[in-house]
Amino acid sequence: MERTDPVLWPSDRSTAPITEAQAQAFDRDGYLVLHDLFSTDEVRALVDSATALRETLAGSDARGVVCEAGCAAVRTVFELERQNALMDRLSRDRRLAGAARALLGDEVYIHQSRLNYKPGFTGKEFYWHSDFETWHAEDGMPRMRAVSASLLLTDNRAHNGALMLMPGSHRTFIACQGETPEDNHESSLVRQDIGTPSQESLRDMAEIHGIADAEGPAGTLILFDCNTLHGSNGNITPAPRSNAFFVYNAVSNACASPFAAPAPRPAFLGQQGTPQPLEIRDGPLLQEA
Amino acid sequence: MERTDPVLWPSDRSTAPITEAQAQAFDRDGYLVLHDLFSTDEVRALVDSATALRETLAGSDARGVVCEAGCAAVRTVFELERQNALMDRLSRDRRLAGAARALLGDEVYIHQSRLNYKPGFTGKEFYWHSDFETWHAEDGMPRMRAVSASLLLTDNRAHNGALMLMPGSHRTFIACQGETPEDNHESSLVRQDIGTPSQESLRDMAEIHGIADAEGPAGTLILFDCNTLHGSNGNITPAPRSNAFFVYNAVSNACASPFAAPAPRPAFLGQQGTPQPLEIRDGPLLQEA
Repeated sequence: MERTDPVLWPSDRSTAPITEAQAQAFDRDGYLVLHDLFSTDEVRALVDSATALRETLAGSDARGVVCEAGCAAVRTVFELERQNALMDRLSRDRRLAGAARALLGDEVYIHQSRLNYKPGFTGKEFYWHSDFETWHAEDGMPRMRAVSASLLLTDNRAHNGALMLMPGSHRTFIACQGETPEDNHESSLVRQDIGTPSQESLRDMAEIHGIADAEGPAGTLILFDCNTLHGSNGNITPAPRSNAFFVYNAVSNACASPFAAPAPRPAFLGQQGTPQPLEIRDGPLLQEA
Repeated sequence: MERTDPVLWPSDRSTAPITEAQAQAFDRDGYLVLHDLFSTDEVRALVDSATALRETLAGSDARGVVCEAGCAAVRTVFELERQNALMDRLSRDRRLAGAARALLGDEVYIHQSRLNYKPGFTGKEFYWHSDFETWHAEDGMPRMRAVSASLLLTDNRAHNGALMLMPGSHRTFIACQGETPEDNHESSLVRQDIGTPSQESLRDMAEIHGIADAEGPAGTLILFDCNTLHGSNGNITPAPRSNAFFVYNAVSNACASPFAAPAPRPAFLGQQGTPQPLEIRDGPLLQEA
């Protein structure tokens, strides 16, 4: 099914933190990989903060803290911007939130955020999916007007499970088979089986669009549209893979009742209620942190 | 433990199918990736032959035919050169067997061979290992004087599980923990758990040597030493990965009794007895096939 919503929403991008060429590339490909936006000091501070957070939360049974299957190590920490001042500052940074605002043509808020950590040696794959179907069906997000920002906290290469995207796949909506079972999110955080596209449609999409590897050193920023097909392979290399991940949604696109689920997912997975626009911050991260 | 055996054995390489620079690179890195050795027609014939073989053998319960866990599709066919004339011809081809002879400084025979097929979407990883420990302990191979030849039958990229190697790792012997259980090969063909190096030593080796991706289109030939650390990631892309794989051993290095197992593995996994030197063939594959 062809997408009806715009990808690049009308806005004055003259002061945006991305160039017009970058905005057009996002419109065409459904993603952008941006290098060298953050200083060495900023990257180091973020990496240290993420490491400390995972150490502090190891063994925690708090909701929003997810462990690798069969392992005590922390794999995901949701609501990342609530964990400390630096991550809060990052979530409002113009290079992330300002870019999202420019692409979406609206003020933005955080629909979901998390710190991801995929260990070396035993890191599991994350199968192909686009995010919008879940956000629409389970969270009640009305339109395709959200963008994900993944700031790499480790060097990501194809062979340690870098994000793969199908460029241009955001122009097509692929409905997934199967009803959403109750509390689907509890199992899908560990391993995603339900609600993924068929092998046939993935094969077609890969043939048409190809597969791009979003590689880059720590500090690289990946922005991608809510309907871009993406996934990542498992990782037997010793090198872990980690990123700080923020989903920015247009405030005019706030979530209502789920479109195809009995109840919305918990708030740490998808913010409900009337959103407050993020106050976007300029300048280096570290002056305020 | 430092390796005592040579990598590049003394021989007259003036008529070898690899250059002296390539031989020296093999000596240094423990592997070589060679492109464009085979014509388009040759590659197509090999790919067709491999496809036909897998189709014919699907559902077979013959020893030496291994299926993907939980799936009827054929993953591995051992004793590949016995399956048809073209694969027999390939196994004797100067570009493979002649290169092995030049590197090993001796006539060669096939210790083990197989057709490998790793499906798209669900292809599983193959964890880090070097081959020599198994061949020594379980098959009774006395010395490090064997080389593997993998001829790619699909395009292999890092993101569809291309072979990864640690360049230079062949200079160190890493003993693995644990006794070899009886009939270990029966489970290790499906999933390898036992006899793999510790995470600590893999991390050290990766830090010293790095990790190379042996990428290339169908027709690419990878030669690697019996003690080079290698492995491959799982693969969620639609693109399968397949290769024809031959282990060439020096005839002077024929297997005797296992060094650390009650009995040798079955002959399809490691040839026993006095080997006959391969009769190496020149010229294109297809005239004879």
